[in-house]
Amino acid sequence: MTKAYLVPRAVLSALAMTVAATLAVPTVALAEPPAQLRTQAPGYYRFALAGMEVTALFDGTVDLAPKLLSGASAKDIDALLARMFVPKGVQTAVNAFLVHTGQNLVLADTGTAKAFGPGLGYMLDNLRAAGYDPAAVDTVLLTHLHPDHVNGLLAADGKPAFPNAVIRVAKAEADYWLSEEVAAKAPADVQPFFAMARTAVAPYMAAGRFKTFLPGEAVLPGVASVPAEGHTPGHAGYLFTAGDQSLLVWGDIVHSHAVQFARPEVAIEFDVDKKRAVATRKRLLADAASRKLWVAGAHLPFPGIGHVRAESKGYAWVPVEYGPVK
Amino acid sequence: MTKAYLVPRAVLSALAMTVAATLAVPTVALAEPPAQLRTQAPGYYRFALAGMEVTALFDGTVDLAPKLLSGASAKDIDALLARMFVPKGVQTAVNAFLVHTGQNLVLADTGTAKAFGPGLGYMLDNLRAAGYDPAAVDTVLLTHLHPDHVNGLLAADGKPAFPNAVIRVAKAEADYWLSEEVAAKAPADVQPFFAMARTAVAPYMAAGRFKTFLPGEAVLPGVASVPAEGHTPGHAGYLFTAGDQSLLVWGDIVHSHAVQFARPEVAIEFDVDKKRAVATRKRLLADAASRKLWVAGAHLPFPGIGHVRAESKGYAWVPVEYGPVK
Repeated sequence: MTKAYLVPRAVLSALAMTVAATLAVPTVALAEPPAQLRTQAPGYYRFALAGMEVTALFDGTVDLAPKLLSGASAKDIDALLARMFVPKGVQTAVNAFLVHTGQNLVLADTGTAKAFGPGLGYMLDNLRAAGYDPAAVDTVLLTHLHPDHVNGLLAADGKPAFPNAVIRVAKAEADYWLSEEVAAKAPADVQPFFAMARTAVAPYMAAGRFKTFLPGEAVLPGVASVPAEGHTPGHAGYLFTAGDQSLLVWGDIVHSHAVQFARPEVAIEFDVDKKRAVATRKRLLADAASRKLWVAGAHLPFPGIGHVRAESKGYAWVPVEYGPVK
Repeated sequence: MTKAYLVPRAVLSALAMTVAATLAVPTVALAEPPAQLRTQAPGYYRFALAGMEVTALFDGTVDLAPKLLSGASAKDIDALLARMFVPKGVQTAVNAFLVHTGQNLVLADTGTAKAFGPGLGYMLDNLRAAGYDPAAVDTVLLTHLHPDHVNGLLAADGKPAFPNAVIRVAKAEADYWLSEEVAAKAPADVQPFFAMARTAVAPYMAAGRFKTFLPGEAVLPGVASVPAEGHTPGHAGYLFTAGDQSLLVWGDIVHSHAVQFARPEVAIEFDVDKKRAVATRKRLLADAASRKLWVAGAHLPFPGIGHVRAESKGYAWVPVEYGPVK
């Protein structure tokens, strides 16, 4: 089938049905357009933090129902989602962040691998698409040991995805999720989280490549850990500093950008200690806003990098702008 | 040079200077990390509008100094830029939009080609990176005839970049920028704009592939033109409608997202008729917000797609979220 130009399609079509035999040959004919592609651009985004290079890596999305949120009325939550044009669902990104500090190639969090269906588990593909070899990663910093942060430690064959990396996590986090005693006392529906954490770190531990740290300890040159407990017992952020710029990789401080910046008192069902998670969120939001920190969030809309602005009530998220890497 | 793990670098380094001979061999040694890449992800973004497929194409960025804006104090403008964490510059994106309507492959605007230095002129590369052949584009819709929208009509060799496309533009726009009489009366610094517009459309006109339309006329099935004069005499938007969704490709209604959503009364130096440009911006912002239209802007942060929300004073821009194409 061909398309006629310089003759409106509707007119042509009507003519064709009645006077097909006498229809003049169109002056320009062209094949139908090719099929729609419906593929997305590769899920990485590069960003320069002075001498450091940050690559946001998209693992995929998961839908998190608004009913998982507590601390505001359903009506208020719906209004906040509508205000940010968040479609029903609610689509929630899972991001990891690869930081080349100049001295180290550091991955903060690792995504879900293939534990949660086809919508997730693309971090490793996107790391390669971004031009890096997983074998070159020397350090993996985990904000916490939930499966969407830790499962990506293992490749599809169950072997370490980062064979040359040392894994770092807060001691309180390891003491909780890797403890068979704690796991034994946990509700049945949370048991898989413990099991997945143990499985993911096991080969690294066996190789002597698993190291904990104490709250606030520096983990690498230019990288300090930042205590951020509440979502999990040893949840930690990482502050990367280069020149006069700092980037706080804050893990799960915000799950719903539309709701929790405006209303930091809203908690999510996955918080191990909701009250403490809310207090930590308020503290880090205030800190990020007043110090004008760059922030990288595991569940903020990809690439998940931006700034926090204090509003008369609550905060607003200001995403970074796409552009050439300076 | 190798790196030692399980031994902090600073400690190792200090040790090496004093007790090098007795230093134990590190348990793990790894080459230095590879060089930083500093490349950006490809400049396209795909988005589904019901049965239509929209691909935002990044042409690059240009710095537009805040002093180009008028209608608010310099202090207010600086505060609005700071509020959105816009770095000094001000970096301003140039975007084009490829829409596969199901029946037509339509390009709205074409970027700058190579007229404005190495920061711009990547639209054609990104169209190819997005998986489409420029020869498959059947229609190019121009919002106006400024060089950052029209220069991309020509490839680097000066031949049509879209050899099978018909070019569409509002009659008032063609009457203005393609008129030698109007050009002759224009100030010297604007003369190149007239010349570039004529050069860009010339081969299409010669081939009978240049067609104007009257205000509000439908241009293709599912695509209506939207009068939006002021920035230029025949500036037009294009409303793509599929199912119950509509996308308004609005050209240059906003140049500074940080300033002009909050303060629509702020004009930019390039407006041919500032008063009319402001009135048109106010009308389209109100319309986009009340009808909850998807909007695609030529100078909004890439991908330049999102929604407009009415605030108690002015408006806010809500960018689309990256994710799989539904």
